[in-house]
Amino acid sequence: MAESPLVLVQRPPTFDFMDELLSRNFPVLTTHHTSSAPLLVFLSRHASSVRAVVSIGRFKIDADFLSHLPSLRLIVCTSVGTDHVDLPECKRRGIAVTNAGEAYSEDVADYAVGLLISFLRRIPAADRYVKSGQWAKCGEFKLGIKLSGKRVGILGLGSIGSLIAKRLEPFGCIISYNSTCQKQSIPYLYYPDVVSLAANNDVIILCCALNDQTRHIVNREVMESLGRNGIIINVGRGGLIDEKEMVKCLVDGVIGGAGLDAFEKEPGVPVELFGLDNVVLSPHSAVATPGSLDNVVQLALANLKAFFSNQPLISPVRLN
Amino acid sequence: MAESPLVLVQRPPTFDFMDELLSRNFPVLTTHHTSSAPLLVFLSRHASSVRAVVSIGRFKIDADFLSHLPSLRLIVCTSVGTDHVDLPECKRRGIAVTNAGEAYSEDVADYAVGLLISFLRRIPAADRYVKSGQWAKCGEFKLGIKLSGKRVGILGLGSIGSLIAKRLEPFGCIISYNSTCQKQSIPYLYYPDVVSLAANNDVIILCCALNDQTRHIVNREVMESLGRNGIIINVGRGGLIDEKEMVKCLVDGVIGGAGLDAFEKEPGVPVELFGLDNVVLSPHSAVATPGSLDNVVQLALANLKAFFSNQPLISPVRLN
Repeated sequence: MAESPLVLVQRPPTFDFMDELLSRNFPVLTTHHTSSAPLLVFLSRHASSVRAVVSIGRFKIDADFLSHLPSLRLIVCTSVGTDHVDLPECKRRGIAVTNAGEAYSEDVADYAVGLLISFLRRIPAADRYVKSGQWAKCGEFKLGIKLSGKRVGILGLGSIGSLIAKRLEPFGCIISYNSTCQKQSIPYLYYPDVVSLAANNDVIILCCALNDQTRHIVNREVMESLGRNGIIINVGRGGLIDEKEMVKCLVDGVIGGAGLDAFEKEPGVPVELFGLDNVVLSPHSAVATPGSLDNVVQLALANLKAFFSNQPLISPVRLN
Repeated sequence: MAESPLVLVQRPPTFDFMDELLSRNFPVLTTHHTSSAPLLVFLSRHASSVRAVVSIGRFKIDADFLSHLPSLRLIVCTSVGTDHVDLPECKRRGIAVTNAGEAYSEDVADYAVGLLISFLRRIPAADRYVKSGQWAKCGEFKLGIKLSGKRVGILGLGSIGSLIAKRLEPFGCIISYNSTCQKQSIPYLYYPDVVSLAANNDVIILCCALNDQTRHIVNREVMESLGRNGIIINVGRGGLIDEKEMVKCLVDGVIGGAGLDAFEKEPGVPVELFGLDNVVLSPHSAVATPGSLDNVVQLALANLKAFFSNQPLISPVRLN
């Protein structure tokens, strides 16, 4: 590399998994400010020379933040989703953006299946039942719901959705999907809209990107179509569901239940969900395991090195 | 059918799922005594004419119980396992025995995978974390362990074990097995003993029958071979594991963790397990869902009808 560009790492305090490797390769500034005010003070001292940002977590990278970084040329996201980055502004400024590509896809797909079985077979409730000593006191535990034969509609048949489908096939699930467009080489039934996907399935699994077209794509109408035995599994973003309506639908039995790994205002979760029997909740855990983080760290470094050696990026995000 | 034989249904109080259908087809006596003393009083009044027993649950059918039923010709078990039945005595008396065949296999296989993902990805702990409000208070949740790439050793590659293997393949797991004998048509690596199965895998899944050869087949030596990152998933019987040693191994970190659906003295569970982070516990839930119970009910009825019409049994148990 001709130069050693300054890299700003923007991350939550505990997410230090890239620090060492990055520091061995680039001069690095690390911030873990959770609000933008102290961050901007910090930036005012160093910002003019920052050439790349490594974005870990979902701190907002908006036009204002970007305006403090006049030399910025590259944003490397360790997430797949880039809804926290102002992509149009990046495009305008000519800032390249990369994401985690498919590094997490297996983990998310594994988790989607895990959440689905956990919900159907009531595994978290079972664990509580035994650990609280209720089994010996209260007797038999209520049986769960059979997975084999369930019709599963996948919303977003990208890399994660395809891996979920592949995993669910040997369970005897019948797979269909909705996606931005029908995929010619895919044998699964395609539904051109989400209402008919919901109406014709027992389970819908959300794993599409969050953007203006998909925000609240699962609204009241979709949930009514899914029906009172229908199940939502969300391993995408919280904003894919109209959360307020979903809470009502879960409380009133408009839908049967949900396994939710994402929420609209994380780490905030609607408290009405806490006491419900028909939900399994999880704190945005689908996305990663330490095994995948290794891959992501390598991918982020490879993107940085490629960019500053004028090589093609490994996992570029298209800026429309 | 030439006659209408009296059928005795021995079941726990809440397990009434066969009552209606059976009563429509046979004269039925129902008992749900949990101890043998009142049962024997009951039997003394009716027992001489009982031609078949439908055994639901795991009430012991031993030589003493059988001695009160001189006309008994058939025992229909709604379980797959028949370790609660004195099979040698049945053989001596010429009593035929049937079991649930493969009616539950899918449910058990689904549950084994669910327990494994629940353990690795910490889904029950995640559910507790969110529902108790800790996410908003305490921040990020500890990441779980990756499933893809794990080496999984299946102990007992019968109908359930084969379905587990088939389900785990698309997760990128590497499957091997130990069974009473090597299966020629199976592509998975065979280990002739359990110690080497444990030594060469990250996870062992127990789904073999419990009998004199398999009781405590997972002993201290096997657990030491599995090692401190090794995981046990038990969807078979509790007696397959030396439970006392397992508790020690879990507490001392000799093994990494366990997902346990079966215990030696159900519904008793060693209290030492209740507080452990590295276990997911469940109250013998793998075995069934209402969907499968329908199959079992039909199978039990078909066995009864076949037997008393001198037709071959549908799911006979071999009496060695």
